[in-house]
Amino acid sequence: MNAIDDLIRLLKKLPGMGEKSASRLAYHLIKTDDSYNKALGTAIAEIKDRIHPCPICGCYTDQEICQYCSSETRDKTLLCVVEEPQDVLSIASSGAYNGLFHVLGGAINPLDGIGPESLSFPSLIKRIEDGSFKEIIIATNPTEEGDTTALYIRHLLKGKEGILLTRPAAGLPIGGDLGYADKLTLARSMKGRIRL
Amino acid sequence: MNAIDDLIRLLKKLPGMGEKSASRLAYHLIKTDDSYNKALGTAIAEIKDRIHPCPICGCYTDQEICQYCSSETRDKTLLCVVEEPQDVLSIASSGAYNGLFHVLGGAINPLDGIGPESLSFPSLIKRIEDGSFKEIIIATNPTEEGDTTALYIRHLLKGKEGILLTRPAAGLPIGGDLGYADKLTLARSMKGRIRL
Repeated sequence: MNAIDDLIRLLKKLPGMGEKSASRLAYHLIKTDDSYNKALGTAIAEIKDRIHPCPICGCYTDQEICQYCSSETRDKTLLCVVEEPQDVLSIASSGAYNGLFHVLGGAINPLDGIGPESLSFPSLIKRIEDGSFKEIIIATNPTEEGDTTALYIRHLLKGKEGILLTRPAAGLPIGGDLGYADKLTLARSMKGRIRL
Repeated sequence: MNAIDDLIRLLKKLPGMGEKSASRLAYHLIKTDDSYNKALGTAIAEIKDRIHPCPICGCYTDQEICQYCSSETRDKTLLCVVEEPQDVLSIASSGAYNGLFHVLGGAINPLDGIGPESLSFPSLIKRIEDGSFKEIIIATNPTEEGDTTALYIRHLLKGKEGILLTRPAAGLPIGGDLGYADKLTLARSMKGRIRL
């Protein structure tokens, strides 16, 4: 098997990569600096050896405990619950949140056979009982599954006094155009309108 | 440096890859089969060690002589001259050409400092003099640089009798829409119209 065909065949399996873009990428790699190829190749080959889920929050880390859980400067009274590990990165890099995280590992979706028992609710409850959280931000996706999961968490935490449960605002994306917003987003943004 | 940040930083250097798509790709790799990551990583890291330009035609190969030049079944009276190694793959996989190839290594472009001396014209001439080609298809790109290069080859081969010089037809892309074609393409396609 030809080395280039081999590379193209592997690249083609990446999401959103067609025949043309895979071959363009392969020829790009042939033209670039070999040390970059070596670094990228090694990073891809070793990524699953180098990282694992943080035993506390569930986000991916190459340390024993992740950078968020082990941080001295983050606000330990705030907990943000998300569906997937990559959501941690998105929220952390928004710069608007400085608390801790908890990764559920998905959202409740009975049609796909994902019930509450598949998600990390027991460790969430334990962290809330052991910790000193004042606010739990349920940042599951603004989808039916994410909303269901948020309601389920509210149900789980019923009776826990002194903890504020919140959910990030849903509405028009900043820089967006009213004309391009879908009906559901527009309806949510009208219902959730705030005083100027 | 975090292993994921590291991978995202490297992926972001690929063409057409922004912050978002790089991080999406990184998390995709974390979720996929490790043996695939190992295969892809190795293929990327080793691609420049495994391939080199064919000493005859200049396309990339992992054999001593490329699959086209060493083929027993390809038509040795046809030579297709292209700008870049990847053009060989495009034309070969179109299924409409079964001759040999010659890679120039670019097109004449005085503004970018690429004169005829930077391209593989000497080996082209030698191959034509030594070979038994009946037709040379000059498949440089249908751009100003590609057209200039084609004219230069015609000039180089002046006086060589019995060799047909051709150029692939330029015109409307198949499946395209007249309304979306740019003026130059439309003009070429009208000028080069063929009898039905």
